[in-house]
Amino acid sequence: MRCANGDNSWAMTKQWVYLFSQGTADMRDLLGGKGAGCAEMTRAGLPVPPGFTITTEACNAYYESGERFPDGMWDQAMAALREVEGLAGKKLGDVRNPLLVSVRSGAKFSMPGMMDTVLNLGLNPETVEGLANLTGNPRFAYDAYRRFIQMFGKIVLDLEPAPFEKELEAAKTRTGAASDAELQPDALKELVTVFKAIVKRATGSDFPNDPYKQLEAAVGAVFRSWNNNRAIAYRNNNNIPHSLGTAVNVQTMVFGNMGDDSGTGVAFTRNPSTGEKKLYGEYLLNAQGEDVVAGIRTPQPIAALERDLPDVYAQFQTIANRLEQHYRDVQDMEFTIERGRLFMLQTRAGKRGAEAAVKIAVDMLHEGLITQEEAVLRVEAEQVDQLLHSRVDPNAKYDVIARGTNAAPGAATGQAVFSADTAEEWSKAGKRVILVRPKTDPEDYAGMIASQGILTSTGGATSHAAVVARGVGKPCVVGAEAIYVDEEGKRFTAGSVTVNEGDMITINGTTGEVILGEVPMIPPEISSHLSELLSWADQARKLGVRANADYPRDSEKARELGAEGIGLCRTEHMFMEVDRLPIVQQLILAKDDDTRRQALAKLLEFQRGDFVGILRVMHGLPVTIRLIDPPLHEFLPSYEELLVETTTLRLTGKDPQRLKEREDLLAEVAQMREANPMLGLRGCRLGILFPGITEMQVRAIFEAACILQKEGVEVHPEIMIPLVGHVNELRIEREALERVAQQVMEEQGAKIDYKFGTMIEIPRACIVANEIAGYAEFFSFGTNDLTQMTFGFSRDDAEGKFLLKYVEDEILPSNPFQTLDRDGVGGLMRIAIDGARRTRPDIKLGICGEHGGDPRSIELCNELGLSYVSCSPFRVPVARLAAAQAALTKAEKDR
Amino acid sequence: MRCANGDNSWAMTKQWVYLFSQGTADMRDLLGGKGAGCAEMTRAGLPVPPGFTITTEACNAYYESGERFPDGMWDQAMAALREVEGLAGKKLGDVRNPLLVSVRSGAKFSMPGMMDTVLNLGLNPETVEGLANLTGNPRFAYDAYRRFIQMFGKIVLDLEPAPFEKELEAAKTRTGAASDAELQPDALKELVTVFKAIVKRATGSDFPNDPYKQLEAAVGAVFRSWNNNRAIAYRNNNNIPHSLGTAVNVQTMVFGNMGDDSGTGVAFTRNPSTGEKKLYGEYLLNAQGEDVVAGIRTPQPIAALERDLPDVYAQFQTIANRLEQHYRDVQDMEFTIERGRLFMLQTRAGKRGAEAAVKIAVDMLHEGLITQEEAVLRVEAEQVDQLLHSRVDPNAKYDVIARGTNAAPGAATGQAVFSADTAEEWSKAGKRVILVRPKTDPEDYAGMIASQGILTSTGGATSHAAVVARGVGKPCVVGAEAIYVDEEGKRFTAGSVTVNEGDMITINGTTGEVILGEVPMIPPEISSHLSELLSWADQARKLGVRANADYPRDSEKARELGAEGIGLCRTEHMFMEVDRLPIVQQLILAKDDDTRRQALAKLLEFQRGDFVGILRVMHGLPVTIRLIDPPLHEFLPSYEELLVETTTLRLTGKDPQRLKEREDLLAEVAQMREANPMLGLRGCRLGILFPGITEMQVRAIFEAACILQKEGVEVHPEIMIPLVGHVNELRIEREALERVAQQVMEEQGAKIDYKFGTMIEIPRACIVANEIAGYAEFFSFGTNDLTQMTFGFSRDDAEGKFLLKYVEDEILPSNPFQTLDRDGVGGLMRIAIDGARRTRPDIKLGICGEHGGDPRSIELCNELGLSYVSCSPFRVPVARLAAAQAALTKAEKDR
Repeated sequence: MRCANGDNSWAMTKQWVYLFSQGTADMRDLLGGKGAGCAEMTRAGLPVPPGFTITTEACNAYYESGERFPDGMWDQAMAALREVEGLAGKKLGDVRNPLLVSVRSGAKFSMPGMMDTVLNLGLNPETVEGLANLTGNPRFAYDAYRRFIQMFGKIVLDLEPAPFEKELEAAKTRTGAASDAELQPDALKELVTVFKAIVKRATGSDFPNDPYKQLEAAVGAVFRSWNNNRAIAYRNNNNIPHSLGTAVNVQTMVFGNMGDDSGTGVAFTRNPSTGEKKLYGEYLLNAQGEDVVAGIRTPQPIAALERDLPDVYAQFQTIANRLEQHYRDVQDMEFTIERGRLFMLQTRAGKRGAEAAVKIAVDMLHEGLITQEEAVLRVEAEQVDQLLHSRVDPNAKYDVIARGTNAAPGAATGQAVFSADTAEEWSKAGKRVILVRPKTDPEDYAGMIASQGILTSTGGATSHAAVVARGVGKPCVVGAEAIYVDEEGKRFTAGSVTVNEGDMITINGTTGEVILGEVPMIPPEISSHLSELLSWADQARKLGVRANADYPRDSEKARELGAEGIGLCRTEHMFMEVDRLPIVQQLILAKDDDTRRQALAKLLEFQRGDFVGILRVMHGLPVTIRLIDPPLHEFLPSYEELLVETTTLRLTGKDPQRLKEREDLLAEVAQMREANPMLGLRGCRLGILFPGITEMQVRAIFEAACILQKEGVEVHPEIMIPLVGHVNELRIEREALERVAQQVMEEQGAKIDYKFGTMIEIPRACIVANEIAGYAEFFSFGTNDLTQMTFGFSRDDAEGKFLLKYVEDEILPSNPFQTLDRDGVGGLMRIAIDGARRTRPDIKLGICGEHGGDPRSIELCNELGLSYVSCSPFRVPVARLAAAQAALTKAEKDR
Repeated sequence: MRCANGDNSWAMTKQWVYLFSQGTADMRDLLGGKGAGCAEMTRAGLPVPPGFTITTEACNAYYESGERFPDGMWDQAMAALREVEGLAGKKLGDVRNPLLVSVRSGAKFSMPGMMDTVLNLGLNPETVEGLANLTGNPRFAYDAYRRFIQMFGKIVLDLEPAPFEKELEAAKTRTGAASDAELQPDALKELVTVFKAIVKRATGSDFPNDPYKQLEAAVGAVFRSWNNNRAIAYRNNNNIPHSLGTAVNVQTMVFGNMGDDSGTGVAFTRNPSTGEKKLYGEYLLNAQGEDVVAGIRTPQPIAALERDLPDVYAQFQTIANRLEQHYRDVQDMEFTIERGRLFMLQTRAGKRGAEAAVKIAVDMLHEGLITQEEAVLRVEAEQVDQLLHSRVDPNAKYDVIARGTNAAPGAATGQAVFSADTAEEWSKAGKRVILVRPKTDPEDYAGMIASQGILTSTGGATSHAAVVARGVGKPCVVGAEAIYVDEEGKRFTAGSVTVNEGDMITINGTTGEVILGEVPMIPPEISSHLSELLSWADQARKLGVRANADYPRDSEKARELGAEGIGLCRTEHMFMEVDRLPIVQQLILAKDDDTRRQALAKLLEFQRGDFVGILRVMHGLPVTIRLIDPPLHEFLPSYEELLVETTTLRLTGKDPQRLKEREDLLAEVAQMREANPMLGLRGCRLGILFPGITEMQVRAIFEAACILQKEGVEVHPEIMIPLVGHVNELRIEREALERVAQQVMEEQGAKIDYKFGTMIEIPRACIVANEIAGYAEFFSFGTNDLTQMTFGFSRDDAEGKFLLKYVEDEILPSNPFQTLDRDGVGGLMRIAIDGARRTRPDIKLGICGEHGGDPRSIELCNELGLSYVSCSPFRVPVARLAAAQAALTKAEKDR
């Protein structure tokens, strides 16, 4: 630019203006996103309507000097305009062949709709006639003119829009036009006159006919729009510095409505839904962009352009290929054809569905377009989850009758049933059912397995229904509070809708929707493409990936999906099963040692069987088994139900025997009740006070391990003590339990490769991790509880009562139960890790909270240098990919 | 020692043996506590029975060389023995004038009763006769002999005690003696023979008659007792290193039973109960120490010795003075007079009661004996608390019928009443009453004030009863689970005891005892001595001391006791008062804005009055007011009670109108119920979701401040936002509330000196304190909640269910709700303080948890550099003293 016309005065001043041909993609700071994009396309040799960019520095200089253009800027802009006129073959204000331009804002970061744009600048009483002649379309020319006046009035002259709208309505009424589009050229001409009168009345001046005055005013207006209220608020909310300023882009207008050799359209270089390598899009001949959007005429598929305008199609095809090669990614392009000449208006990376994302990444690698690392980075980890579950066809229309918490992903359709027994029966009879309950209990387990999906009206993302559903990969919606479940009546209502037993419903566990009737579905698939991609991810990642699994079935699934071990096996779920619960209750309520011993002996049998099952499936891989964690009263009937029952029995006086029994039980339950059970007698506190249970569990683990080892199975149990807050807790528990372990191995004459470690889920444990590490061979961060205690949030209470509102109002950046809180919880984890490594440099560190399957949390885990993450089996592929991406991104940053 | 006999071989070996005259008080490592003490007394010129100490190094060398005395040790011991014989004028084994010695262990740290002692060593068939002649008391001589054989047998020869005991019983039966003391010389002589036969039978050898052999064996046995099981366990529990070893003290035995010119006694240099400067103690002539303890004869007061043995008394008086001057503290002394010769056996700092401690410290300063700093350090801070409450006479005997948690200190006697109304009535009628309830509620407040003390059968140290009682200084025992309160029957039972309305009971809130009937009491007093001591403390301390007070009455008391401001004024207690609760309920249950506004307007009146009251009392001092904190459902009836009531109403069908009402309320309460209310919708979360309440509170504070300022009262309100975990919470709350503050000041045309700050009670807040400090002018550590969340302990559940057991079993060093957990909670506080000061170097930092009144916690607060501690009004003097001691101790350490 500097030397384009040899004018030496330029050398004295800064370069405020860049032709598109002078910029590059990496000049976003100076040219803004749009300016840099146009420059990059122009540089790539694409037919971009010519134009230039006035820099963000000019904008800042404008503000600094009291809203005046900086010295030299306008001269530079005029010189650039001359160049553009040459490239376009048109001239601003030329009556026969007028150049029209758009004047658009364009900051470094996209601020969609926040700042201003003026289109069709350059029209005046003379050039509008020239445009009419050129297009042979006076209606179009005058419509453009009245729009220009209206837009210029609002944006540049800061006038109220209402008077213009009122006159427009009046014109339609007067001429009987049903819509703007039916207004005839004469009516539009008259509107132009009326609009100019409005301007004169409001400003005291005539509407400017001089295109140069128009341009000068428009550029100033766009600068000023940087500081309109909307823009300031947007920047505040999005942490965009106010000091950046906006660039201004002045670009030749092109028209797709100049006859049948003109047109406009959009296209992807590959199919964004399937990933197929073939142009995908649509266009309309003799039309403007708005017409495609308005949907008045039906667009043609892009392939038809080959027949309509073969040369243009061939050129477009070539350009599309060039763009893909240039950007090394699928492009989403907008184009206009003006009298047989193709112009590219925009190109950007194309958004794509999960399937397409995987296929495109793998294909592009095979095409040699991208590297293996790039392929891994191309697929959003979260998208992979969709491929592992049935999902609702995104094109389907359906009737949502309620919403709940999206507790386990995927969608399922089936007949509504209201008891676990019915679910089992109907399922055996070959029916597909959805189990609908107020909430689920351990005795519902078999019914849950037999169902396609689970719907509850109460409970949160850690309720029984949610945890079991995620473990077994069933779609699940919980806490759908708008529905009322009438168990006895075998129906539920949601507003005015009643769903009876046997009625077909669909639940979408990915979104939380409850839907009446059937909906078209897309089935799950682990394609060969996905397998390939994940194998590359495995090469790239530093973090191990394990699964949280409590049953052999889950463990098998986890292994199949690539888990390298079990990171959390919760033993209490085993206690909840229907045949065991009575024994557990017998144990808890025992009044003497004999009863207690008998119950423990029976449970030992069961638990040994459990561990044989899981350890066998996980042959050769480590299995972390957490000893009993929840408070004992969770295994007893509810206090409230007993209260109602005893009150009723007392009043009716019918069954004094049962009353006595229930009163006794009520007293027991009352004694064990806790004000804040989350912070009560559970975890290792239980193990220390009632050593019998944990000793039984350790015995079961080691007996199972010995049995399997004799069969030739390779076992690596890792015993995990929950809820340790003080080093003495771990010391005492470990000493007691190591004793049992040694004893069993002696009895069995075997030697098992095992480890002892602890959950880190109490804030105090993080602070004194250096001490705790003295007694732990591994730490597993229990980030669910750690988040609860670090924030002082009871998840059960917080999510419904205030947490979601906190996220909505941006008090918190995200739900800390879904994405690890980097500063707070992450800060504590960092303290813990530093402390632990000081004491035991080779300590194994993992995470087994639900965050283990969340990509952003996995990124933090990678940064913290954990050994592995553990998540529910169906999240394992997501975690593998996210771990790889985290490693690659970190390597990039560290470089 | 080295040169006593010029034997050069000694120069080759270490010095293993020290005469008492060779050691000093600071040689505890080498000589043990007892050896160093005897040395110090000897050095001070006191008549200590001569002896020597074999060092701890000798003990360690003994173990290292396979339980053999190190080279040279025995020779050194023999040389020392010769010196001792010279000093005592007796010789080991001398038939006419035999030296008897005691052989005692003595480690660096006292391990009471864990290791072994042999007395009367040196007796054999010849010397026993000599002793009989010398004392003229063959019974005494033979009793000493048979005891020696028995003791030597057990300790040195490791024999079972049972055979000796059996023979002793047989001898008594045979001779018809009712007790050991009635055994006659002949019987004892025969026992000696029988005992020697037992030894011969068990060991195959004769009992050693050679005193040197006896001594050699006894020294080895004492060395070995360092590693007996009891001693090892004791050291493990008390963190005493096993490597220290024990010293052995060999000391001349003296006998107080050698006639009427002999005797034994104990005495204090000042009265340990009143502090009066006068010898205080007792003695028995012609008796041994055991006789005083056994209580067979009644000892004489020490003053009587002046008449019995005037010379000895004068000498003792002089020695007592010397000792006090030497040790510069009250001494508790043991002495024996052997044939007119006074021997000091032991002297140590005398334990003293609260009153005495204060008087002695102040007196000694005035006597020029100690400095002001030493005086401040001489009184245990915790003792001061006793002086502020009535207390049970320590000499009284009484009948404890139950025990509970000692929730508020002091003792009170009164007639038991079972309702707050009765308490008020009876109190107005001039009766003293104790209010006995299952638990107290806000409506009981007036009745609590009217009572002498409060007793509840449920609840913990933070229950309503406990908090209110501490605030108003009433003795209180809560959670006395052994009592059953029958409200309707107006009585309570404790085991087999029934207490009816009007029966006299006493509660001891310092110990948690519930006592039947009246007990002699000592009334409270803030003596001039105490005032003087506290004024010295105020000069020494760095920490400010404020009080936690919710009412003008508490605030007045706090000021009177020296509080420099209010550190925590809890506004929710104001909501609980009987005339306000219905309005609060109206507010919570309001279905429309009008109702809500009306309720808020009424509450505004009340709150303004509350603040006027407190701010007026605290004229000139800062008052930190915490905005509403507890979950709203605490202001509504209990869910369980409503459940029972609706069930009953439904079954009886009697009152459908009320059933409907109660069902509606039940539904509301159910909606607000929380699984873990501690971690639920409370604190600033409430303020953010329902801004009306906190805005009303801030308006009330500022309106009150403006009113008072116009009256000339100097006000410094400090607004405190509770439960902040994320900086955005504080930012939003502060912005909203500052707005109200500015508005009120504008309305009133006033300018108030105020501050905005936050509680730090959520672990996350500590980690991100640097961010939070950007919006807080002060932090107040809420260490109650911070401890709950840092440990994951719900106090309500933990204390009863496992925490006390944790402390008992030494899993935790102390109850972290009483004494700040230095490593965990203290670690988080340190992180918070460092972060806060980085952002705002002059930030004011306080603590308002209950730890603010605990001396050990105050020491940590001083170390952390807090600005002030805040505690309940009656703890203020304790805190003043403890803060001074912390500052002095730290200055000493830093020196």
